Amino acid sequence: MPEFSPGLEGVVAAETAVSEVDGANGRLIYSGGYLIEELAPIASFEETAYLLWHGELPGKAELDSLRRQMAAGRRLKDSAQGVLSSIDPQVDPMDTLRTVVSAQGATSALTKPTLDEAVALTAVIPTIVAASHRRARGMKLIEPRAELGHAANLLWMMEGKEAAPDRVHWLDTYLVLLADHGLNASTFTARVIASTGSDLTSCVVGAVGALKGPAHGGAAFAAATMLEKIGTGAKILKEMAKTAAPGLYKTAEHTEEVALRILHEAHPERPNATNVDFWAAVVLSGVGIPKELFTCVFATSRIAGWTAHVLESLADLRIIRPASVWKGPQPGTKPLPLASR
Amino acid sequence: MPEFSPGLEGVVAAETAVSEVDGANGRLIYSGGYLIEELAPIASFEETAYLLWHGELPGKAELDSLRRQMAAGRRLKDSAQGVLSSIDPQVDPMDTLRTVVSAQGATSALTKPTLDEAVALTAVIPTIVAASHRRARGMKLIEPRAELGHAANLLWMMEGKEAAPDRVHWLDTYLVLLADHGLNASTFTARVIASTGSDLTSCVVGAVGALKGPAHGGAAFAAATMLEKIGTGAKILKEMAKTAAPGLYKTAEHTEEVALRILHEAHPERPNATNVDFWAAVVLSGVGIPKELFTCVFATSRIAGWTAHVLESLADLRIIRPASVWKGPQPGTKPLPLASR
Repeated sequence: MPEFSPGLEGVVAAETAVSEVDGANGRLIYSGGYLIEELAPIASFEETAYLLWHGELPGKAELDSLRRQMAAGRRLKDSAQGVLSSIDPQVDPMDTLRTVVSAQGATSALTKPTLDEAVALTAVIPTIVAASHRRARGMKLIEPRAELGHAANLLWMMEGKEAAPDRVHWLDTYLVLLADHGLNASTFTARVIASTGSDLTSCVVGAVGALKGPAHGGAAFAAATMLEKIGTGAKILKEMAKTAAPGLYKTAEHTEEVALRILHEAHPERPNATNVDFWAAVVLSGVGIPKELFTCVFATSRIAGWTAHVLESLADLRIIRPASVWKGPQPGTKPLPLASR
Repeated sequence: MPEFSPGLEGVVAAETAVSEVDGANGRLIYSGGYLIEELAPIASFEETAYLLWHGELPGKAELDSLRRQMAAGRRLKDSAQGVLSSIDPQVDPMDTLRTVVSAQGATSALTKPTLDEAVALTAVIPTIVAASHRRARGMKLIEPRAELGHAANLLWMMEGKEAAPDRVHWLDTYLVLLADHGLNASTFTARVIASTGSDLTSCVVGAVGALKGPAHGGAAFAAATMLEKIGTGAKILKEMAKTAAPGLYKTAEHTEEVALRILHEAHPERPNATNVDFWAAVVLSGVGIPKELFTCVFATSRIAGWTAHVLESLADLRIIRPASVWKGPQPGTKPLPLASR
């Protein structure tokens, strides 16, 4: 029996062509071999999602077709709309997202995950996020607008007015940067659920639940998760934060300096850089997203990666069922004192 | 970098005292070191759940207290009741379960998993399963009855009349036998979600999604999953099936013989015995559970194990984030042909 590796650190759980966290070289590679710093300045979220799903960037016709398909997928089914209306508007927006995605994807017979379902679930998430936002404030929900892109439409449904192009661009870039990140805990959750032959909705719902945890997406500002090895995405976001959130930028930069100094003193051997989540949070503030929605907006992006990983895993599906080590008593050491007998 | 182990076979992902699948000796050990064949003939589901949660069997006072707590937890919150009413009665009962559990456990602030929540979620599942059953048939829902045990109350809420003691006993024994089984895919899903610091509801909702897959709980009769190494639970169920489902028993026994013969001819070196799921399905048929509810009734049992594993994992929580191997193109090999520019 091999040794227990807490957190499965260093254990290879998948071969993937969706993304690669190349820690040694400080690189994040997306599908097709594109570096995140090449893509982020010029790709939209829709192009990035297409890339993760298909392994190559879309041509004009493919992109137009995807945009139409996503615009057509923004409305909740009546049953999911009813589910949304029943949820207490004050619950955690991630709980609303988990529940309404589950309702939206409910079917009468088990379906194997498909690309169309991936597009549909990705398309509808902003509708749920915006609805959470407005319901919590007692505001009427806003209908999606088909002619707006994914990022612009999210801001439209949240605010009921068209957002300035800068804000749309910052949000769109955020969505590109966070769309995938190797076998993080939520993506791994989606792959474990997929490994049983379950449906795509179950995979996404499980991943939303994992993303909610503060050690993953649930605490964008938590000091413990602020600093990690991959700095490229963070650098792009930091640069963007200068314009997007000029007020917060100075404080954030100071915090970053102090944290990096503390970390360097504790572990001078480690090359540290700021985690993408840290500057992502600053940028989202600049976009005007309230902080209780940060994790939901993270999910709005990461669902592209979750679904791409699930679709990829179908090619060679094998149930993920690791071993465990028994640390309880051996049989025969205790009598059976049963109260009901 | 270590090698890729498909399905994480042989990789140790946890140390646990909840249960142990001792394949070499054909044993299933539950918390406290009890063999499943010692427990099953005399323990109720409530006692078994207590055992998995606490590591020891309850005394009379503890058991009475748990029974009261579970009886008090059988009603859905108003919001979850509203969610249930909005769901199309014809969807897969597992989708209803996934959605309504998500709604029932929604909270305004993130909570660390607790034993009380484990009890509450375990207590309410039969209410959702019975409601799925009756809604699909256009029948009025039945209120739970506090004086009935867990198994008896599920049959009561499904049928609106008290079930014969034999049927209650068969169902109760089924619930005891399926309550945990090492790091199966749904339990592992729950542990991965818990590893991010997420809440218990997210863990259970993810586990329900994993259990839905046909390679796990979703196809009780599927030939591919019929035969596995652990036979003890299956033997108990097979014995029970003789009385519970005398008609089906003969066919099932014949099917088992044929399947074991085929498998022995293909792999004479392997010691095969019938998977617990096979005889479990026969017993559930004998209890009168319609087959579209089999996976939900499996979840009714396994939630004890899911929640016990999550609570156990809190003692030494570490995010589960395995490595992957990149099989995509290396950076710099493709140009960036972007349609939107």
